[in-house]
Amino acid sequence: MGSLFENIPAELPDEIFETICAANWVKIERIVSNGQASPEGFWYDQEGNEFVLVVKGSAGLKIEGEDDIVTLRAGDYFNIESHVRHRVEWTDASCETIWLAVHY
Amino acid sequence: MGSLFENIPAELPDEIFETICAANWVKIERIVSNGQASPEGFWYDQEGNEFVLVVKGSAGLKIEGEDDIVTLRAGDYFNIESHVRHRVEWTDASCETIWLAVHY
Repeated sequence: MGSLFENIPAELPDEIFETICAANWVKIERIVSNGQASPEGFWYDQEGNEFVLVVKGSAGLKIEGEDDIVTLRAGDYFNIESHVRHRVEWTDASCETIWLAVHY
Repeated sequence: MGSLFENIPAELPDEIFETICAANWVKIERIVSNGQASPEGFWYDQEGNEFVLVVKGSAGLKIEGEDDIVTLRAGDYFNIESHVRHRVEWTDASCETIWLAVHY
């Protein structure tokens, strides 16, 4: 048992990626962002699928080839299929953005 | 894409179980409760593992053989391994309790 809202450092110079559950080729992560974005020109290109849920804060997700940036606010989820290239364009700079990510 | 906070009926006589993502032997569900509990004497006993996160509201989870009821509030998660018998003792009666459940 644990809480997504606890054990967050006061300073977050970098995003935090923390595995909170892993078994049967599934990995569940908490990600905490605080204004970070993916580096210029960087795209995630992952072997597996990733389901993301924003639990607190907000973020902009860019999918390669799509014009619009997907805005995710608390309660919003998005399923990123394997090898769909994507990047985080922005995360809320005024508070932590807490994500739950399920890699499957 | 979707929101865990949208498309909730005004009346919730029964809990709602809704699959929002499924592939590779993983199923991700939204569950919405509103004061319900598992029936008297009923225990869930599942073939697979289930990771639950309470996104809104609160609930009491009873694990067979444990004296204490686990209280889950917004942001709290719990991993229920396969065949660990459990039941929902209570859910918040004053607002919806919204769960994300990952069956894996």
